[in-house]
Amino acid sequence: MSNKSDFSTLPAQAVIREVGLRDGLQSIPTRVSTAHKCEWITDAFAAGQREIEVGSFVPPRLLPQMADTAEVLAFARTLPGLKASVLVPNLKGAERAIEGGAHLMILPLSASHAHSLANLRKTPDEVVDEMKRIRAARDAAGSQTLIEGGVGTAFGCTIQGEVKTSEVLRLMQALLDAGADRVSLADTVGYADPHSVRELSEQALKIAGDRFCCGHFHDTRGLALANVYAALEVGVSRFDASLAGIGGCPHAPGASGNAASEDLAFMLQACGVRTGIHIEKLLALRAKVVGWLPGEPTHGALWRAGLPKTAQAATAAH
Amino acid sequence: MSNKSDFSTLPAQAVIREVGLRDGLQSIPTRVSTAHKCEWITDAFAAGQREIEVGSFVPPRLLPQMADTAEVLAFARTLPGLKASVLVPNLKGAERAIEGGAHLMILPLSASHAHSLANLRKTPDEVVDEMKRIRAARDAAGSQTLIEGGVGTAFGCTIQGEVKTSEVLRLMQALLDAGADRVSLADTVGYADPHSVRELSEQALKIAGDRFCCGHFHDTRGLALANVYAALEVGVSRFDASLAGIGGCPHAPGASGNAASEDLAFMLQACGVRTGIHIEKLLALRAKVVGWLPGEPTHGALWRAGLPKTAQAATAAH
Repeated sequence: MSNKSDFSTLPAQAVIREVGLRDGLQSIPTRVSTAHKCEWITDAFAAGQREIEVGSFVPPRLLPQMADTAEVLAFARTLPGLKASVLVPNLKGAERAIEGGAHLMILPLSASHAHSLANLRKTPDEVVDEMKRIRAARDAAGSQTLIEGGVGTAFGCTIQGEVKTSEVLRLMQALLDAGADRVSLADTVGYADPHSVRELSEQALKIAGDRFCCGHFHDTRGLALANVYAALEVGVSRFDASLAGIGGCPHAPGASGNAASEDLAFMLQACGVRTGIHIEKLLALRAKVVGWLPGEPTHGALWRAGLPKTAQAATAAH
Repeated sequence: MSNKSDFSTLPAQAVIREVGLRDGLQSIPTRVSTAHKCEWITDAFAAGQREIEVGSFVPPRLLPQMADTAEVLAFARTLPGLKASVLVPNLKGAERAIEGGAHLMILPLSASHAHSLANLRKTPDEVVDEMKRIRAARDAAGSQTLIEGGVGTAFGCTIQGEVKTSEVLRLMQALLDAGADRVSLADTVGYADPHSVRELSEQALKIAGDRFCCGHFHDTRGLALANVYAALEVGVSRFDASLAGIGGCPHAPGASGNAASEDLAFMLQACGVRTGIHIEKLLALRAKVVGWLPGEPTHGALWRAGLPKTAQAATAAH
């Protein structure tokens, strides 16, 4: 045991992008009404959240929970300063995101060929081609909607097992070359560990610099927050998370879901990283949302234990 | 966002010290029989665990679950290469640990004066005096039993709130001066975050060097594994953990318990840190122990999700 380094500078601030309304709600059978979704967004905004993924422009027959995405997006756009993003699986979805005036649309790509074929019925390179078409459509429309390429199964895959780092980085570069404004990394199936997160994030930053904008970590094996911390240490400062940890990997039933937004906000603020989030308000919203999801598994630890005595004053100020 | 550093060397190996039989069982009403405790130790040993805290030499009227500690310790000593430790609250307990031939005895000290008085009915400095008496008794007996001073509430306290770093470090130094062979840090109430863990661990290493031997993190607010990772990064390579995460803080009912041994083993091995633990065997033991604790809250994520496809070959080899 030795004192190896005094490296310990974390980013001064970080963004928690709320994905509960998309990644969370799309994974569970309970339908949340459009009115409740808008109430969720209103309360999240009031608690200080400024980036929210409000839904997914997929065919309603595939994900009926997301059928009201256009309406929810329209509502989100009325809140000043809120950046509303949507997931788009293809050009058709992107056209709806552009039409709806989303601030950001995220095109997911799976770095695992097997997962990509099973999930999207396309090879990763066919998704790269779709990115080109989406960029062309965005530019042709004179739209301001940003485009993010989300590289999923970046740390391994339940179907194919290992996913090579070189392939993850190749596809990240290809998405940028195809016109993505920015890229992100997702541990879609909960295979990441802090060491691999640190290493891959460092390499992604070398390729994409500031255009590598977000980490998305599932808590399937309990490591989501450790993974966030590892990414934070190398300078990543935006993370997807889901209130009450809902969502996560549909291939691991019963397993934990996403990083829980409220636990992540607590960790970041305890570490001195500003998030702009009022944690008590977020916990109040969590209780409300859990009430809308009777019988659905929810996660997280902070809601049980409450804030430490030492944090109560500090969090209000952040 | 920027690529700040390539610091990423973790220790090549780390020890998970199993505390489920002490910290875990003392916190829950269900009594586990002496035979089951010995079976637990046998199976943990077979799964590769080599350091186990087998009990606590406290008055049986206070903790009847620990009344068989001498017997369990005697059994643990029959397993070749197993280091059996016990918790001792005072000289009287230390005398029993010496008599029983424990490899290590741990004297807890609470850096929070308020917590120390409430829990141990002594000031922290009175505990330091007890350390002097214990060291004298150990030396007088010609015993080989090592003495660890465990500095608890090192990251804050539910009663007094803030605990000053300077006070934690002063007491750590005082324990060493009083004759402790080594010292450890405990987040007794789950107030720690990775940043504070990193900072305090670095300072502890400056004071105690290799004699700062262990971190003990509760998962009360979901940060136990992130905290372990932060300590690991600065060179700490021994961690207390409890199978199924049992135990933890009695002041936070319903909250998560200790770091779960099985999840911690997974994280460490996934990060390339050897633990000597066969995770599948540990998961089998977990299922057995959970069966002995009907109705008691248990924790952890790995048991639900299982090992990733990418880890299955690797873990057997560690």
